[in-house]
Amino acid sequence: MTTFPAPALEPPYYAVIFASVRTTTDDAGYHAMAERMVELARQQPGFLGVESVRDSSGSGLTVSYWQTLDAIAAWRRHAEHAIAQREGKRQWYAAFRLRIARVEREYGSEDIRP
Amino acid sequence: MTTFPAPALEPPYYAVIFASVRTTTDDAGYHAMAERMVELARQQPGFLGVESVRDSSGSGLTVSYWQTLDAIAAWRRHAEHAIAQREGKRQWYAAFRLRIARVEREYGSEDIRP
Repeated sequence: MTTFPAPALEPPYYAVIFASVRTTTDDAGYHAMAERMVELARQQPGFLGVESVRDSSGSGLTVSYWQTLDAIAAWRRHAEHAIAQREGKRQWYAAFRLRIARVEREYGSEDIRP
Repeated sequence: MTTFPAPALEPPYYAVIFASVRTTTDDAGYHAMAERMVELARQQPGFLGVESVRDSSGSGLTVSYWQTLDAIAAWRRHAEHAIAQREGKRQWYAAFRLRIARVEREYGSEDIRP
């Protein structure tokens, strides 16, 4: 189960902002991988949450949240994730950009004073 | 014109990660506001780029990039943007969460070594 937006978290923590454009190649393979990666990410130490949206034109944003930079580095090196990254570059993504950022503050609709 | 992903930028800089769920209210008003806010944001000092995606279920992610925290604070207080924020809370968003983060590193598909 995914909550969207990701729940309130306690800064500081880290965000991986992944913007990508899908090719039109291998939709079934891509969707299976994307689901599996979310399932697998949830099991990693330091994982805090994920928000992911893709529109019908193929533009997608996935933001995953992590306790530390070490947790992000370990997830990047995870064997099954490394295969997904390689296939992403090879066939699923026409373009992508990945940014790593330290979240310093946050608020949400549930925090709003009347 | 919007480039997606946003272009390569030089860290450090700042990201505003805005995750929201649309209500089913006032689609025309919402879309007009959303377009106007992107147009207006581009004209603000310190604006670096924006990535925005919404899917057919109403989940949306918008990440805007800024040179400094002061630029973000000034944009937040911008009069026309303040009206949009108020209307967003009042009628357009069922839920949202906003996170402010310092981007520390980045790379993209065009940077990849063979």
